[in-house]
Amino acid sequence: MRFDVVGLGVSTVDLIFTVDELPGREVVQRAGESVIAGGGPVATALVTLARLGAATSMLDSIGSDFFGSFIQREFTAEGVDTGGLVVAQGRTTSKASILVRKSDGARAITFSPGDAPELTPDEVRVDIIRASKILHLNGRHWDACLHAARLAKEAGVLVSFDGGAHRYTNQHLSILPQVDICIAAHDYAAAFAGTEDVAQAAKALLEAGPCVVVVTQGAAGSRVFSKDGLDFQQQAHRVDRVVDTTGAGDAYHGAFLYGLARGFSLEASASFASAVAALNTRALGGRAALPSLAETEMFLQHPL
Amino acid sequence: MRFDVVGLGVSTVDLIFTVDELPGREVVQRAGESVIAGGGPVATALVTLARLGAATSMLDSIGSDFFGSFIQREFTAEGVDTGGLVVAQGRTTSKASILVRKSDGARAITFSPGDAPELTPDEVRVDIIRASKILHLNGRHWDACLHAARLAKEAGVLVSFDGGAHRYTNQHLSILPQVDICIAAHDYAAAFAGTEDVAQAAKALLEAGPCVVVVTQGAAGSRVFSKDGLDFQQQAHRVDRVVDTTGAGDAYHGAFLYGLARGFSLEASASFASAVAALNTRALGGRAALPSLAETEMFLQHPL
Ligand SMILES: Nc1ncnc2c1ncn2[C@@H]1O[C@H](COP(=O)(O)OP(=O)(O)OP(=O)(O)O)[C@@H](O)[C@H]1O
Ligand SMILES: Nc1ncnc2c1ncn2[C@@H]1O[C@H](COP(=O)(O)OP(=O)(O)OP(=O)(O)O)[C@@H](O)[C@H]1O
Repeated sequence: MRFDVVGLGVSTVDLIFTVDELPGREVVQRAGESVIAGGGPVATALVTLARLGAATSMLDSIGSDFFGSFIQREFTAEGVDTGGLVVAQGRTTSKASILVRKSDGARAITFSPGDAPELTPDEVRVDIIRASKILHLNGRHWDACLHAARLAKEAGVLVSFDGGAHRYTNQHLSILPQVDICIAAHDYAAAFAGTEDVAQAAKALLEAGPCVVVVTQGAAGSRVFSKDGLDFQQQAHRVDRVVDTTGAGDAYHGAFLYGLARGFSLEASASFASAVAALNTRALGGRAALPSLAETEMFLQHPL
Repeated sequence: MRFDVVGLGVSTVDLIFTVDELPGREVVQRAGESVIAGGGPVATALVTLARLGAATSMLDSIGSDFFGSFIQREFTAEGVDTGGLVVAQGRTTSKASILVRKSDGARAITFSPGDAPELTPDEVRVDIIRASKILHLNGRHWDACLHAARLAKEAGVLVSFDGGAHRYTNQHLSILPQVDICIAAHDYAAAFAGTEDVAQAAKALLEAGPCVVVVTQGAAGSRVFSKDGLDFQQQAHRVDRVVDTTGAGDAYHGAFLYGLARGFSLEASASFASAVAALNTRALGGRAALPSLAETEMFLQHPL
């Protein structure tokens, strides 16, 4: 079996409730909507790719609890390969309670990491990495992450890194030389470079290794830079009604990699990713409104 | 098969996280502990009974989702019979996110009722009711509840009613004549009788039908009344450290019915119930610290 993208990260389960007020005091309140959904940045990027029709595989270590089996079931239902998932017996899976205020979408997130041990380098399925076009990482399972990046490099597999908001640590300096494409939240790029200036931060990231750097800026869109001097702004696409922006970034990552795997230009990949991310904000939950390829193409031809 | 207690109510799943602060604003915070646990007043009373060694069966309608299968698996693991559980295909199960502040145990509860339809009267398993000593209800699945109470009466099965805090409605007037034992939260008794006075409220409840009325008062204990003039106060038992009082009332109900099913006096049943309820406050989650019979007897012989 060959894969477009293999991902290595932490899968979580999100329990999402919409509420009238974020509960700062003792209260019993009825939720508007409620959703249980798989989450985790890399996992959601892979599900985005799978919905678009790409072949994907997830490398992760999850617990043997109910949440672990939920994750496995959902990957299987989405068509994400689970051959590289390690199930740690007797351990718990990462989960989060997410309360979303109806009036403005403000989120109170309480997460619990679970106690499944990190994936170890020798648990990384070399064969799956070698069978892929792109390896997508975000720094979780650190030792395995470094090891996988090296394996990918040796095998000529592209390495993609998701620089998540509030996730920058100095440790990442040692993986960036192996990275080909770094898509970072504005906050990550700023923390890395010590400057709020997007162009300066992107330049610093490009110097650390990647040949393509994308900085995402929420509703303000994204800006794409390359080592050979490309620099353009991609506007965010508009949708009728933004319900929940959870997973917008993850959808962007998945869709951008879809473009690269299919040989799109950087411009086309960015526009495509921006469309998929915008479409994904239409429903509650990080994956609820992920579009198919046909839906995305239709949206790009007939934007609002 | 014969049962000590058959319960009819709504089973839920509680997702419990301990937190430093109840999140009144946009925040990302790491939970201290987290627990997924079955809940629902009647269901927790049955699990209390099962841990003590009694034979129990649950009548309910749950969804076919992940939470529904969690509930079934947990009942099975606890030894609660699920022959009378109806699984509504394609429907969701009742669930709640419970954030518990570490400093003082204050709880912010966000619940989502699920969309499984109510149990209907013809879905009530007559054979299970006839095979039981006691039927335990709390007014949920209303039509089925009334029907089950009538069936129980005809068959000489005792009817127990849990009057939960904030749950009183006028509707309940029509079931109380069928009820033999009513254990009510102080709030319920007060709402029913229109008076905060416990003795007056209990007298009003006794006049509505039951021959035994118990009013629970949290850490202040409980007071037991009977039609033939019994009236005594049962102190709450003390435990080392109260972690979470969720389910204290449900444990009290289950243990009180255990006493009645085993032929204990009302005094012994109240003391026993108070011990089980106190022991159940030692851990996070409505059922996490429910004691065995041996543990309860040991605690009653050597209280703190
Ligand atoms: N409100 C929105 N409307 C339309 N598109 C949006 C909106 N918010 C985000 N996007 C799209 O998603 C992309 C990524 O969003 P963002 O920069 O918030 O990522 P992120 O910080 O990684 O998000 P998250 O961690 O919530 O997934 C943006 O560049 C934009 O194209
Ligand atoms: N902090 C406590 N310490 C010891 N025992 C307690 C404590 N809180 C409650 N109990 C015991 O549990 C019994 C029932 O408690 P309570 O009156 O709070 O029930 P409830 O309102 O039905 O509770 P819940 O709905 O949370 O289950 C009390 O009568 C008492 O015996």
